[in-house]
Amino acid sequence: MADVAFIGLGIMGVGMADNLAKAGRKLVVWTRDAAKARAFADAHPGAVEVAPTAAHAVRTAPLTYCMLSTLEASTAVFDAPDGVLAAVGPGKCVVDCATLTPERMAEMAAAVRAKGGKFLEAPVSGSKKPAADGQLIFLTAGDADLLEAARPDLDAMGKATHYYGADVGAGSRMKLCVNMTMGVQIAALAEGIALCEASGLSGDAFVEVLKQGAMSSPLIAGKGAAMVGRQYAPQFPLEHAQKDLRFAVAAGDKLGLALPVAAASNELFKRARAAGNGGDDCCAVVEAARK
Amino acid sequence: MADVAFIGLGIMGVGMADNLAKAGRKLVVWTRDAAKARAFADAHPGAVEVAPTAAHAVRTAPLTYCMLSTLEASTAVFDAPDGVLAAVGPGKCVVDCATLTPERMAEMAAAVRAKGGKFLEAPVSGSKKPAADGQLIFLTAGDADLLEAARPDLDAMGKATHYYGADVGAGSRMKLCVNMTMGVQIAALAEGIALCEASGLSGDAFVEVLKQGAMSSPLIAGKGAAMVGRQYAPQFPLEHAQKDLRFAVAAGDKLGLALPVAAASNELFKRARAAGNGGDDCCAVVEAARK
Amino acid sequence: MADVAFIGLGIMGVGMADNLAKAGRKLVVWTRDAAKARAFADAHPGAVEVAPTAAHAVRTAPLTYCMLSTLEASTAVFDAPDGVLAAVGPGKCVVDCATLTPERMAEMAAAVRAKGGKFLEAPVSGSKKPAADGQLIFLTAGDADLLEAARPDLDAMGKATHYYGADVGAGSRMKLCVNMTMGVQIAALAEGIALCEASGLSGDAFVEVLKQGAMSSPLIAGKGAAMVGRQYAPQFPLEHAQKDLRFAVAAGDKLGLALPVAAASNELFKRARAAGNGGDDCCAVVEAARK
Amino acid sequence: MADVAFIGLGIMGVGMADNLAKAGRKLVVWTRDAAKARAFADAHPGAVEVAPTAAHAVRTAPLTYCMLSTLEASTAVFDAPDGVLAAVGPGKCVVDCATLTPERMAEMAAAVRAKGGKFLEAPVSGSKKPAADGQLIFLTAGDADLLEAARPDLDAMGKATHYYGADVGAGSRMKLCVNMTMGVQIAALAEGIALCEASGLSGDAFVEVLKQGAMSSPLIAGKGAAMVGRQYAPQFPLEHAQKDLRFAVAAGDKLGLALPVAAASNELFKRARAAGNGGDDCCAVVEAARK
Repeated sequence: MADVAFIGLGIMGVGMADNLAKAGRKLVVWTRDAAKARAFADAHPGAVEVAPTAAHAVRTAPLTYCMLSTLEASTAVFDAPDGVLAAVGPGKCVVDCATLTPERMAEMAAAVRAKGGKFLEAPVSGSKKPAADGQLIFLTAGDADLLEAARPDLDAMGKATHYYGADVGAGSRMKLCVNMTMGVQIAALAEGIALCEASGLSGDAFVEVLKQGAMSSPLIAGKGAAMVGRQYAPQFPLEHAQKDLRFAVAAGDKLGLALPVAAASNELFKRARAAGNGGDDCCAVVEAARK
Repeated sequence: MADVAFIGLGIMGVGMADNLAKAGRKLVVWTRDAAKARAFADAHPGAVEVAPTAAHAVRTAPLTYCMLSTLEASTAVFDAPDGVLAAVGPGKCVVDCATLTPERMAEMAAAVRAKGGKFLEAPVSGSKKPAADGQLIFLTAGDADLLEAARPDLDAMGKATHYYGADVGAGSRMKLCVNMTMGVQIAALAEGIALCEASGLSGDAFVEVLKQGAMSSPLIAGKGAAMVGRQYAPQFPLEHAQKDLRFAVAAGDKLGLALPVAAASNELFKRARAAGNGGDDCCAVVEAARK
Repeated sequence: MADVAFIGLGIMGVGMADNLAKAGRKLVVWTRDAAKARAFADAHPGAVEVAPTAAHAVRTAPLTYCMLSTLEASTAVFDAPDGVLAAVGPGKCVVDCATLTPERMAEMAAAVRAKGGKFLEAPVSGSKKPAADGQLIFLTAGDADLLEAARPDLDAMGKATHYYGADVGAGSRMKLCVNMTMGVQIAALAEGIALCEASGLSGDAFVEVLKQGAMSSPLIAGKGAAMVGRQYAPQFPLEHAQKDLRFAVAAGDKLGLALPVAAASNELFKRARAAGNGGDDCCAVVEAARK
Repeated sequence: MADVAFIGLGIMGVGMADNLAKAGRKLVVWTRDAAKARAFADAHPGAVEVAPTAAHAVRTAPLTYCMLSTLEASTAVFDAPDGVLAAVGPGKCVVDCATLTPERMAEMAAAVRAKGGKFLEAPVSGSKKPAADGQLIFLTAGDADLLEAARPDLDAMGKATHYYGADVGAGSRMKLCVNMTMGVQIAALAEGIALCEASGLSGDAFVEVLKQGAMSSPLIAGKGAAMVGRQYAPQFPLEHAQKDLRFAVAAGDKLGLALPVAAASNELFKRARAAGNGGDDCCAVVEAARK
């Protein structure tokens, strides 16, 4: 029997699962693209087996990590007849690391608990590189003893784990706040570069100034250089960044909180998505800002 | 005769002039509030004298630094009968460190040059603390030999000096790009904290997560803590941050560049100004975001 | 047996049902507040009976009109064990006049059709007074023969009926476009009045000018006077206007269409809602614009 | 000697001057394009003469109407050595019908009065067709006796004249409020049509619904049909509509009033301008909304 099941080997999941394997864990994996799962197993001989279905993976291990990138993908895999929930029974542990809505996380928790399982939401702050480097930040809520059981794994995949209580949804709410702020910061950078270029100044010079001042951050340095150089290979796809802005604005709506700057940013990201940059890195929003 | 004249001892100017004095420069100073000028001179016995007018200060030194915080204040002091321009003659050097419009900087340069003087625009990136610590970043354009003459002073007041060519206005344009991006970033942080608090989560916990991730920056750490703790003592007054957003959006207008996120941020800052937070630190924009 | 069932006697429904009664139709009604249903029946002796449940009403008549004001209320009444769907069987006709999402309308149509019933979506353009005056505009899609059967009723309740094909959802999509435009127009008027008043000019004088020019419309005249006079008795509640803006922006999101002005308007309406104006007329958004 | 001088025969001015001629007034005209002035005179034999300069026109008549479409054009013609102000002397009357900033109008009034002249600001609500049809609305402020002297002319050119007191600037402020609201309404219509089309519905059907409801107005009917049919021949050029939005947002800024919806609309108009629609009719903003 495997130590853990890992569902979802996308941009983020593959790095996370790799770090679990490196930490000595035996994995059973499943992802929609069977070839990807096969390749991952081949790269970790003896440590990883491929399950034919998500349900089979969940059944094969006491503890399952899910990392599916959209609400649609997550729901499809969780609720399918041969999906995650179908395999949950008493004592089964599920840790979901996706960025979904707080409401959906709470629903999943209730469904798992109704079948005697335990649930921890653990959305991550960080994108492709932090996932690969084991530098993610986990924003968790749910069953406290599951958190303790999972902690060595979380430590293998990340550099910090925060716990916001037993009430599932709190982690996702925090994640939305974080990603909303990130989306707006990226829009801020994009409009700054666009104005700079339109003014006849060098975008590189602009990013250089930002890197010397109070705004200096890995985000500014990395996304700034990528925007100026028009390098849009996806670290965190634009359509996912826009999804998080949408979720955050909707969360504000439910709470009666106006978020005019996030809403304007959301529209800018939508424009970029409409122009075909949805699958590019989120920094491609600069293309919408440029015109 | 003094080495340099320094016009404007506001939040920023006092730190800058202090660093010039510490570097051994003899100063003649003028600022609108005579008591402030007197106090500054008293704090630097033997190194600083107070001029009765701006013109007198300019006449008393070969090189003048101006640091007046608004377009109105700058214009009033520059154009007054006993102001800066009145005292400019052949060879007189003027370095203006304020954040004004590119157009106004070009006008001032033309006026100084018409009277035989030299002009360098040198708006700064950085606020109260970097000014006090000699950690400003100068974004300069104008007479290259004046830049070389002023460089030891700029090095005493800052940690980096960028030069964008002889065409005065380029430095202010870069400054506007920088401050626009900063204004939007602060709005991003404010809305993030407001959403976090409205969600029943701790603003401190939110800032903690940001500090561990890709967005980590001195701005996030400093302004984040101030917003959560509602500490609004002015480092960079909100009304000035809003002024820069306004100038940046207007610059985009002239260039035919839409800046929807900056425009939305500008309106949020205006709301904070309208609510009475204009003289507070710019991070008080979180008050407008909270409701 | 009654001619028609009418579910939902809110601000709009009461006027609509009244017009059906005036046209000589025998009604069976149900609404959540039994006292309201009772009062309505008492006002129409011999023509209206009160059903104990929505299901009972639906069973009692061949054709049912639903007019429930929110997605939540509509869903609750439609799906309840003693709700609308429970009573649908072969040949039963349902006309839903609420403003819901296109997706929800399609779901309801599918559910009704699956049980052998017929479904017409017929959201209305118009608010309290047009409902009372039989001047609504129906934006319909669905079963064409049900439309023909319902036409005399629609004519009694409205002044125009548009049909957008068999594909349920098209009527709701048109409705969202209409209400989004209305929401933004109301925001436009609110900001105009706010600027006018802040400029020291009379809001009444402003509305007077609008009424003489190309923008002159019943909306401008009615909402303009109400905003200036701060008369917020609900014709079309602000929280519903905001809901429609939210749905429209979300529809744009799905279609990849940025709607920055609607999104900004949505946030302004949210701010008014947060300030406690959710139950007031939508023109109370001027309160949020004023400060 | 002519009865009146008319300066500026653009899209609006030509219709206004034509109505003065039809009312029996002898005109002396000047406009930047001499061929246009010539053509206008040729079309009104015996009633119109062409002046070689604006100053000459002003000198030739006791009363001058100015209708120059931008702040730049107005300033250039007003302040030029052979411009309007140069020819003002005691008793000379100037009525300015352009949409400028309140501040500029007040400056012009002060300059005219300083030379013994009288000044009335009289910006108009209405575009090309109302100008041609004598259906403009004048929003005036300034010298009350000049208003009475000009009233027959204003009645020949318009259908209503409002007076907001002696304080010049009030008429322009009212005009800004009106045009801001119009700009946002046009943006509202544009986004509505864009969403409608993206939803697979007919834009014509959408405009039809609007024309039957509370939003029905000449603006909706005219601009709606033009947007759907992509007919952008300029009635009121987009770049002027955007200029008015910019002025209005700036006026709000001075007053400490946030105008988030107008600001978002301004950015949408800017995008259209950037895409090359500046000289088209303002309804071409729908092109920016469509993508």
